[in-house]
Amino acid sequence: MKELFSDWRHVFKLDPDRTLPQRELEAVLGSGTDAIMVGGSSGLTYDNTAALLERLTGSDIPIVLEVTHPELALPGFDAYLIPMVLNTGQGDWITGRQALALEEMAGLIPWEKTWAEGYLILNEDCEAARVSGADASLTEFQAAAYARLADRLMRLPLLYVEYSGRFGDMGLLRRVKRVLSGTRLIYGGGIDGPQRASQAARIASTVVVGNVLYHDLDGALSTVQAVRETEQEI
Amino acid sequence: MKELFSDWRHVFKLDPDRTLPQRELEAVLGSGTDAIMVGGSSGLTYDNTAALLERLTGSDIPIVLEVTHPELALPGFDAYLIPMVLNTGQGDWITGRQALALEEMAGLIPWEKTWAEGYLILNEDCEAARVSGADASLTEFQAAAYARLADRLMRLPLLYVEYSGRFGDMGLLRRVKRVLSGTRLIYGGGIDGPQRASQAARIASTVVVGNVLYHDLDGALSTVQAVRETEQEI
Repeated sequence: MKELFSDWRHVFKLDPDRTLPQRELEAVLGSGTDAIMVGGSSGLTYDNTAALLERLTGSDIPIVLEVTHPELALPGFDAYLIPMVLNTGQGDWITGRQALALEEMAGLIPWEKTWAEGYLILNEDCEAARVSGADASLTEFQAAAYARLADRLMRLPLLYVEYSGRFGDMGLLRRVKRVLSGTRLIYGGGIDGPQRASQAARIASTVVVGNVLYHDLDGALSTVQAVRETEQEI
Repeated sequence: MKELFSDWRHVFKLDPDRTLPQRELEAVLGSGTDAIMVGGSSGLTYDNTAALLERLTGSDIPIVLEVTHPELALPGFDAYLIPMVLNTGQGDWITGRQALALEEMAGLIPWEKTWAEGYLILNEDCEAARVSGADASLTEFQAAAYARLADRLMRLPLLYVEYSGRFGDMGLLRRVKRVLSGTRLIYGGGIDGPQRASQAARIASTVVVGNVLYHDLDGALSTVQAVRETEQEI
């Protein structure tokens, strides 16, 4: 764990349900990013996840899967993240589906490379919020309370503040960051270029860049350097 | 934490909504039990919790509160446990009420003596199951999956297998125990005398004795010795 996440400042997120031409994928792998996260809110199947994994295999950066369904948990990833949505009234998305997956997989889980990832989904218009029934309209005080819950009660290694598709409230993000004592803060959502990457990297430990890869590769690639420079400044 | 729970093999649970005459309360405090847990599924108020705390103050064993509502979290307890029901579809009972409480209390929580307590509620006829909407009819494989979730994903310090009012399935309890790597197993429910106390103590790390206190004090007190003897045997 320590080795795996503690140095990651920039991560690209690839969606198995979307296509990146080979040359672009190579540019992503050679971009200087710290890791690739594979995941998405819908449309993931065994087949498209396996196909993407195959294209990524052999790269020298860690490839991590967000396991949103047990059938996606193919061997071959460097690590597995188990999302637990914290801000939903649907218990299924907090513990139910996860317990079901653990039951199905029983003794087969490589615990030494598997971690829980608490999610705060904060964009009510995103697919992840719709699917999980998340209460995405939290105030910054409510978000901070969930952060304390993740950090102090659940002792989660990772808390992912997800604005999927929209750049988030950096004031809220800062308040969340302030209450965390051991949990690592990941930020994702709306990072479309160096400026926003830098803003988020000033607060979050890890910045995730996803959607923009599929419509502005140069913008996406420029976020790596922006995060590095922010790191130097801090 | 380590100091607080790691040696506790036997705990009496007192319900602020029920009355124990003074002489009986003194017998409980002098019984040799390791700690007193204050809690209940219904009828707890600020007033009756404060009244019970006052009667317990000055005893030389730790007094711990299960905080089922933030208004009960009076200062003066030696530790605070925050229940999180794992096997419910109602997200409110897993993270929602807890986050609300954390928001209300914000910076006031004494984290050095506050811990999350995962609950598996397994008696469908008990008040706790009704109130929290728990799916109490788990198979032993499902219960073990929730135990892995508590242990490996949520990294909870405590997992409380609760059969409240009924003696539980010791086969299931054994399976739960087997999958735990760091989480401490607490068992409660239907312990009415030395035999059941001993059975549960062979598996669980901590045995909780509650209801029987209110209708068979001698039976209740005899469980302390039974747990001690079981400890010797193991």
